Amino acid sequence: MASRTTRPITEIGAAVVGTGFIGEVHVEALRRLGVPVRGVVGSSHARAVERAASLALPPAYESFEAMLNDPRVDVVHITSPNHLHYPQAKAALAAGKHVICEKPLTMTSTESGELVRLAQASGLVNAVNFNLRFYPICRHLHQFVREGGLGEVRLVSGHYLQDWLLLDTDWNWRLEPELGGNLRAVADIGSHWMDLTSHVTGQRIVSVMADLKTFIPIRWQPAGPVETFARTAGPTTARTITTEDCATVLLRYENGALGSMTISQISAGRRNTLEFEIDGSSSAAAWNSEQPDELWIGHRGRPNELLPRDPSLLNEEGRATAGLPAGHNEGFADTFKALYRSVYRAVAGDGPSEPDYPRFADGHDSMLVCEAVARSARRGTWAPVVRVA
Amino acid sequence: MASRTTRPITEIGAAVVGTGFIGEVHVEALRRLGVPVRGVVGSSHARAVERAASLALPPAYESFEAMLNDPRVDVVHITSPNHLHYPQAKAALAAGKHVICEKPLTMTSTESGELVRLAQASGLVNAVNFNLRFYPICRHLHQFVREGGLGEVRLVSGHYLQDWLLLDTDWNWRLEPELGGNLRAVADIGSHWMDLTSHVTGQRIVSVMADLKTFIPIRWQPAGPVETFARTAGPTTARTITTEDCATVLLRYENGALGSMTISQISAGRRNTLEFEIDGSSSAAAWNSEQPDELWIGHRGRPNELLPRDPSLLNEEGRATAGLPAGHNEGFADTFKALYRSVYRAVAGDGPSEPDYPRFADGHDSMLVCEAVARSARRGTWAPVVRVA
Amino acid sequence: MASRTTRPITEIGAAVVGTGFIGEVHVEALRRLGVPVRGVVGSSHARAVERAASLALPPAYESFEAMLNDPRVDVVHITSPNHLHYPQAKAALAAGKHVICEKPLTMTSTESGELVRLAQASGLVNAVNFNLRFYPICRHLHQFVREGGLGEVRLVSGHYLQDWLLLDTDWNWRLEPELGGNLRAVADIGSHWMDLTSHVTGQRIVSVMADLKTFIPIRWQPAGPVETFARTAGPTTARTITTEDCATVLLRYENGALGSMTISQISAGRRNTLEFEIDGSSSAAAWNSEQPDELWIGHRGRPNELLPRDPSLLNEEGRATAGLPAGHNEGFADTFKALYRSVYRAVAGDGPSEPDYPRFADGHDSMLVCEAVARSARRGTWAPVVRVA
Amino acid sequence: MASRTTRPITEIGAAVVGTGFIGEVHVEALRRLGVPVRGVVGSSHARAVERAASLALPPAYESFEAMLNDPRVDVVHITSPNHLHYPQAKAALAAGKHVICEKPLTMTSTESGELVRLAQASGLVNAVNFNLRFYPICRHLHQFVREGGLGEVRLVSGHYLQDWLLLDTDWNWRLEPELGGNLRAVADIGSHWMDLTSHVTGQRIVSVMADLKTFIPIRWQPAGPVETFARTAGPTTARTITTEDCATVLLRYENGALGSMTISQISAGRRNTLEFEIDGSSSAAAWNSEQPDELWIGHRGRPNELLPRDPSLLNEEGRATAGLPAGHNEGFADTFKALYRSVYRAVAGDGPSEPDYPRFADGHDSMLVCEAVARSARRGTWAPVVRVA
Repeated sequence: MASRTTRPITEIGAAVVGTGFIGEVHVEALRRLGVPVRGVVGSSHARAVERAASLALPPAYESFEAMLNDPRVDVVHITSPNHLHYPQAKAALAAGKHVICEKPLTMTSTESGELVRLAQASGLVNAVNFNLRFYPICRHLHQFVREGGLGEVRLVSGHYLQDWLLLDTDWNWRLEPELGGNLRAVADIGSHWMDLTSHVTGQRIVSVMADLKTFIPIRWQPAGPVETFARTAGPTTARTITTEDCATVLLRYENGALGSMTISQISAGRRNTLEFEIDGSSSAAAWNSEQPDELWIGHRGRPNELLPRDPSLLNEEGRATAGLPAGHNEGFADTFKALYRSVYRAVAGDGPSEPDYPRFADGHDSMLVCEAVARSARRGTWAPVVRVA
Repeated sequence: MASRTTRPITEIGAAVVGTGFIGEVHVEALRRLGVPVRGVVGSSHARAVERAASLALPPAYESFEAMLNDPRVDVVHITSPNHLHYPQAKAALAAGKHVICEKPLTMTSTESGELVRLAQASGLVNAVNFNLRFYPICRHLHQFVREGGLGEVRLVSGHYLQDWLLLDTDWNWRLEPELGGNLRAVADIGSHWMDLTSHVTGQRIVSVMADLKTFIPIRWQPAGPVETFARTAGPTTARTITTEDCATVLLRYENGALGSMTISQISAGRRNTLEFEIDGSSSAAAWNSEQPDELWIGHRGRPNELLPRDPSLLNEEGRATAGLPAGHNEGFADTFKALYRSVYRAVAGDGPSEPDYPRFADGHDSMLVCEAVARSARRGTWAPVVRVA
Repeated sequence: MASRTTRPITEIGAAVVGTGFIGEVHVEALRRLGVPVRGVVGSSHARAVERAASLALPPAYESFEAMLNDPRVDVVHITSPNHLHYPQAKAALAAGKHVICEKPLTMTSTESGELVRLAQASGLVNAVNFNLRFYPICRHLHQFVREGGLGEVRLVSGHYLQDWLLLDTDWNWRLEPELGGNLRAVADIGSHWMDLTSHVTGQRIVSVMADLKTFIPIRWQPAGPVETFARTAGPTTARTITTEDCATVLLRYENGALGSMTISQISAGRRNTLEFEIDGSSSAAAWNSEQPDELWIGHRGRPNELLPRDPSLLNEEGRATAGLPAGHNEGFADTFKALYRSVYRAVAGDGPSEPDYPRFADGHDSMLVCEAVARSARRGTWAPVVRVA
Repeated sequence: MASRTTRPITEIGAAVVGTGFIGEVHVEALRRLGVPVRGVVGSSHARAVERAASLALPPAYESFEAMLNDPRVDVVHITSPNHLHYPQAKAALAAGKHVICEKPLTMTSTESGELVRLAQASGLVNAVNFNLRFYPICRHLHQFVREGGLGEVRLVSGHYLQDWLLLDTDWNWRLEPELGGNLRAVADIGSHWMDLTSHVTGQRIVSVMADLKTFIPIRWQPAGPVETFARTAGPTTARTITTEDCATVLLRYENGALGSMTISQISAGRRNTLEFEIDGSSSAAAWNSEQPDELWIGHRGRPNELLPRDPSLLNEEGRATAGLPAGHNEGFADTFKALYRSVYRAVAGDGPSEPDYPRFADGHDSMLVCEAVARSARRGTWAPVVRVA
């Protein structure tokens, strides 16, 4: 069982639920920090065994419950399909485990609200895996905006584009509402964009106006399982798709800023590109996830700037997140290490009083925003984000 | 008076109305083509005289009417403030002159509709200055999309950002509704974005959902005249601003494609950046006005491509517009030359039967779309573009 | 005959020798300035006639001599093949014409030295067409370096790469030593790179170490004439090539700075890319001809900068050269207009006492550097640039 | 002691010598693979203790010898200052340990030659840490060139620029010849550039022509130790510097290709940028270490290409090295993981018969090339790379 007294990170045990590619990223990040990974759990035990072997991990757990019963596990990482997040997180908290859960946190805001309450009552560390916040440049920008570096934030725009579902032969569990939820592109990647811009600007989204569209209404599902971003061959079945391939969304932030976000999983040539620009009353900032070590800062009256991820130039938040000297580029995997460093510091009882990582409350807020997106699209009108006091 | 028989371009006379920087761009483009510029007209005769001298032009006309009375003028270029477009274009047509008018074509769609009818009845050449279409890469893309190069067009997204009105001390006639119209950013630069993407995709915009905002409600107007993109000093007066600084707009195109456009004149560091991406069912294309000689083409299943403005690689439309060998970059001024080459070919009676330049009808359609934007923003709902059959 | 008293630019007549694409660029630039182009001259009169028609120019001159005899011609633009530069420039000076000559100025430094002396003795305006200096960003950088913006210049590196001679079926008169000279890539494009970096840094090249190579020793020459950057079909003849396809060159500048330049006409995918970086003791600057409106400025201890071609941010030299507001990109053709504005101001008797355009002396210096390159490559040793006092 | 029979990676123990930032990168890469890190060794035991604690590692070894005596250590990673590489590698081999050594392998080619012989005689796995080869795009390019993707390689050009030694107050042990060797910039980063381009093209460098320069002849050494890329304050001593800040180098590859490389540690704004372009007879390729997930491929006759690090598009070598799906960018740290995966597969007795990682022989060859660079610069002439059969 987890405790809150300070203890070495090497004595805090972790387990990872889920055998997809992202589970492997969790495992490696934990290892870099020196956290012992006690084992993995898969929906298919056979796949978990295989993954444990390929990652040189201890034998896979027989079941989720077996993992919960292992007293050497202090923290549970949940990377299973979306519909399992809620029951698994709930069970893990009940078992006294700290929890790090992939986004979206749950299938509904009712569930996520309940998880927030349970986590709060438990006193356990709870985190949602909005890893993009932990690109050092994004952390830097978070502090920079808070300190007035851009002036008043006025306009937030950008996109998150992928192409891995461009073809009607592309298949993944995320396409199925019962596994991934009724929103797809928005919940999977739009949630990242909205969380990241809210985090960086310090402004919550209060209202949305969305247009969703399913351009590929019939897809061909392969007979066997398919890993995210992987391709398959073999016999297929026609399946009707109801979740959106694309979304165009107008946003309003709590301080009156306007926002605009384009989301797509069918943009040929865009493997995985998140881009945002924040225009303030004095300066602007733009960032692209494919060149994460660089921040564009726009000015009137003087040249624009390119800030490299140079620890000597970053502010406190940026510097705390940077893992390498400038010019030694950091990537996707490095954000996991940085995020878990913060989370495990909290688990070790050694973190700042105000948590510096995204928590279930953030995951819940993301659910509320996503539900407003769905509501807006259904009705064709602006929809407020309903936050109960 | 203008005639439709083929005649040498050196015998077709032009006059330019307006003494701003864009008027000078018109003059130079005409000269490159060998078109004799008979003179310029200004709202202030003194400024016209000055401009004529600085451009080594013949003496400025005393008045707009004096210019119309000059039989050596066949084509009138209208670059005056927006509120003058309609009366001047109407008068020019009545005087038997061919007309090239800056955008927006008029202040209202009633006016622009009337101009379309008048122009049609007159048989005179009429063009609206959507010069961006005439970047060779955009022309190439126009043909490429028509020929199915991207498959079915699904998603069109991007922005047009400027920063010349970032500060409350920035002033220009476009800020005043009575001179520039009730829409500002959308009419001035959003119209370019919407015309360009409609042109390139071959799809009209049928419905819009817009959010407009004036972030700087009070500006300080200088006592004297101010040229676009120029700065001034001296005494100022507080003026209430009602036209929008920013717009976020969702679009629907006639084939069912979604669109998203962000427009701003207060984005620090963005001097003048238009960007669009068109995602089709097989490939995608992206273009940025600040690197106009390059087209990004996105693919699944093979590397993305960068198409340079290389005449040997361009299709017929692109090649016809290119003025220089590959690698010898073309710029803003070159689009005017290319556009007027098409227009003057028509004036000379030597153009293709189907005009290859934007006409008053396109300017009118742009007015209808802009009015839908205004209506949508006022009501907070989707607004159809109302086109009367 | 030309005079040195101030007179309007519209009364200064020009003629253009040469009917290639670059001749057309000269013509258009002159027209933009309001300079009357009296006519063109071609090695083939038929081509000159055709070019005159396509450009809507007055009838072509029957011959070079006929042009020289036209008293309405004050300035002669020489864009013929390299071997004609010397005799034509000499004859033009003798006829009392001002001369603007394409680079390389001549075939040998003996010739170029003589032209310098003749021009000086004549008191006529003489210019060599190093147009790249007239990108506004390059002019800005010239002043910026002179004023110490980079500190002491230490390292100058970069390349000029093209691909138009990649294939053994590519043919152009520049391949033939008797028409283009014994150096090819270095003289044609390396000369631009060396002139530009010398100009911008204010440092002459004093010593070079070069490696030249002809990777395509046999090329197939078409029967008919071939325009630069154009392609042809038809019967061909095998020709042995002795001029270099590529050059790698080490440089030493007079202040002790090191330099490195890579030159190639066979770099697939590089249509026409000049790039340089200047590293100084306090800051650095980099520029690429394919994005000419932007200057990268590198710093230690603070973010790097991107300076746009924004007249409000440019220094005096940059601002004087800029023709459009920021964000309205200028291109290759605009440099010709800017260069000739300076030259014709001098012709009009209205220029600064210290000429601000490249003169025959610069063209001669370029010849001396190129000859050192050839000598170095032949001997495999460092070669000083021999400048006689 | 190490054995060659296949065994699980979790049973192969490693130790890391050196407590600089790069040692930490080694440690994390090993952990990601599941290799147990038995401990670290530092020149200062105190620093090693501190580093062990910050990395949550077992207690640091008391000494290098103590580490060698630990039978649980199979592989020794040497990341100490350059002058220690030779004695430590020699001792490790003598103790029957497999060795992974940072570059440059030794201080002289005599030493490196001896290490090659000793390693070969021992049958132990020996690797030199040319990690840049293990960017997946570079591995892909290696196979692509070998299979003729560019045609015959003709021209290899580029640079490796840093700015961490720009100021005369910048200090590091690499500045001292007795610790870092007589060559500095060339040995430290030029060696990477030359190894990488040789590896990718499959062509050894046979001759070099170099110009070296020390622009900062006096530097101020702080009293205490300084970590690479870190900054310090406090009392300093003037020290005369003899090692080069910059190098410009011409190269000739064994197949007749030309090369050009610019090396600098004083280029303001360039934190750590390696760039190369390889021009072949049919196509070209360019890569920049700051955007490592993208390969530019240049073509004549068709658009250029941008190949993303997309496993589905990479060839066998690239795919084997890629650790994440496309669009999830990999960085500097990921190359270490990929490199050690190959090395430890060999240690486990499970690798391909032909080693796919850089070995001592490559490190020795790099020493020979560097010595030719030094010789050439000293004499001011071309210097052959002397390889004894």
